[in-house]
Amino acid sequence: MSTGDDDGPLRAVALGGGHGLQATLAALRRITPDVTAVVTVADDGGSSGRLRRELGMLPPGDLRKALAALAAEDDDGRLWSTLFEHRFGGNGALAGHAIGNLVLAGLLDVLGDPVAVLDHACRLLGVRGRVLPMSTRPLDMEADVVGLDSDPDAVRTIRGQVAIASTPGRVKQVRLDAIGADHPGACPEAVRAVRDADLVLLGPGSWFTSVLPHLLVPDLHEALVTTRARRFVVLNLVPQPGETAGFSPEQHLDVLSQHAPRLRVDAVLADAGSVPTPDRLRAAATGLGAQTLLDRVADPALPGRHDPEALAASLRAALEGRTDRWR
Amino acid sequence: MSTGDDDGPLRAVALGGGHGLQATLAALRRITPDVTAVVTVADDGGSSGRLRRELGMLPPGDLRKALAALAAEDDDGRLWSTLFEHRFGGNGALAGHAIGNLVLAGLLDVLGDPVAVLDHACRLLGVRGRVLPMSTRPLDMEADVVGLDSDPDAVRTIRGQVAIASTPGRVKQVRLDAIGADHPGACPEAVRAVRDADLVLLGPGSWFTSVLPHLLVPDLHEALVTTRARRFVVLNLVPQPGETAGFSPEQHLDVLSQHAPRLRVDAVLADAGSVPTPDRLRAAATGLGAQTLLDRVADPALPGRHDPEALAASLRAALEGRTDRWR
Repeated sequence: MSTGDDDGPLRAVALGGGHGLQATLAALRRITPDVTAVVTVADDGGSSGRLRRELGMLPPGDLRKALAALAAEDDDGRLWSTLFEHRFGGNGALAGHAIGNLVLAGLLDVLGDPVAVLDHACRLLGVRGRVLPMSTRPLDMEADVVGLDSDPDAVRTIRGQVAIASTPGRVKQVRLDAIGADHPGACPEAVRAVRDADLVLLGPGSWFTSVLPHLLVPDLHEALVTTRARRFVVLNLVPQPGETAGFSPEQHLDVLSQHAPRLRVDAVLADAGSVPTPDRLRAAATGLGAQTLLDRVADPALPGRHDPEALAASLRAALEGRTDRWR
Repeated sequence: MSTGDDDGPLRAVALGGGHGLQATLAALRRITPDVTAVVTVADDGGSSGRLRRELGMLPPGDLRKALAALAAEDDDGRLWSTLFEHRFGGNGALAGHAIGNLVLAGLLDVLGDPVAVLDHACRLLGVRGRVLPMSTRPLDMEADVVGLDSDPDAVRTIRGQVAIASTPGRVKQVRLDAIGADHPGACPEAVRAVRDADLVLLGPGSWFTSVLPHLLVPDLHEALVTTRARRFVVLNLVPQPGETAGFSPEQHLDVLSQHAPRLRVDAVLADAGSVPTPDRLRAAATGLGAQTLLDRVADPALPGRHDPEALAASLRAALEGRTDRWR
């Protein structure tokens, strides 16, 4: 698929982390060879959190997942993406570490520059696009959360991605700790990718901890608000237990708007079976300037996961303005 | 350099482990593109020992060193061999692990077959030759050692490569534990490589724990004794503290002969500056059927290490029978 501006392929940028980003990358690679992933780096749990604490490095897990999602579909690409995703078993010091996390850790130790590290990893896995961190230094999140005390209005500050993602309270707002001062903020290559894109995708994914963080880094926020690319929001199939438990699809858009009042959106894509009140979603989307595309994009075999082929078809329809699919 | 038998390049096989094997590989790659490393797998110390205990896998350290020694000298080969050799710092769970050991561990977990793992690693590092383990399953060594008790003739059995390599006693004999029964013994590809070789190199290296183990695996022993290849022994520059403390060059040959009475050798290569009594060495070499080549092969900048260029020159001289260099 090519852009309307010139004869090159469509330049697509997907922002997020985890399985949500894997889904959009798997869909986008079916549409264009020029896919850039811009990945959250605020994770503090699991293998990534252990490496971050032990080595002071960028948490590699979401970067690794993005690399695997874009790996070449030949023997070499499959071998190295399988290796990257493989986790050590047993109950020793290595148990639970994904090999790719350790390789990225080693490359970071050797090369220093995360962008160079990821470009090398892309070559190893035969990735045709690019994987970039939203920031070249790890980020720390904090959230204002209500509903944790007997007083329902009492606001508590919860720190760390894992704690926020699993809070039994209701998240009102998220912030990044310590951006500015000696923190570099946004990765310049990520900012440039958003600026130069034809299409930018936000979501799906853990809304507060994987999707919104991109809007919390000033330079990236500005690029997302001002880019001439088309901006699509892909909604989750199910509310996430913890951070968005009980959230309706339209509430996801409200939260997005609260964190980025100047952000305009061209299209909101959602799974028709995951939207109980389509009119309310359309109203919320209209508030962002967006049309709403309800389609069948859930994977029937994997509850809660998008089907890459169906999502790609839905993205193509939205790009081509095929309103017959817009219900 | 080509073999006398046909027009293909010289097929060289170097057996050993650690820095000694790295030295012969670095020299051989200057002579021929067809180099096969056959590597000891009895290590139980350091990063390798930790991985072996935690994951029950082949100790990867000596394999990793051989891969790095044969890595392509282009940007990619240098990057991946640097990465393979890089060790995590700090004082956490990963401290001291070489990245290449972890990559090999992951590949072993994913692929199972160590020969396939090493062939993939060779491609990653741009190795033109091949790296093979002497056995596809880890080996355990034990040694008869004297001099550990007040009775100088009392023989104790010491178990494990690290314990043997560092014993303050005098090693009399080494054995492998549990070869046979359900242990596969020699790696068939390693046996074939020795059989099909034009040149086989034994040493330098930790004599009892890196050089002799190959002669303790029955099929590999037989291949070394019966191959039509020329057999060269490269002696150490200095006695190894611990296992060969105080050993003269000729004693190294005596020990070799004791562990492999049927082994005939074509040439013994030694550093002229490391042989205090050349006549005794020549006599011991003659006992094995070998000529002796004394040359300057020590690296002046790195005490105890061979200079690859000088060792390559010495190997070429021996292969071409240039007796003017034979002093």
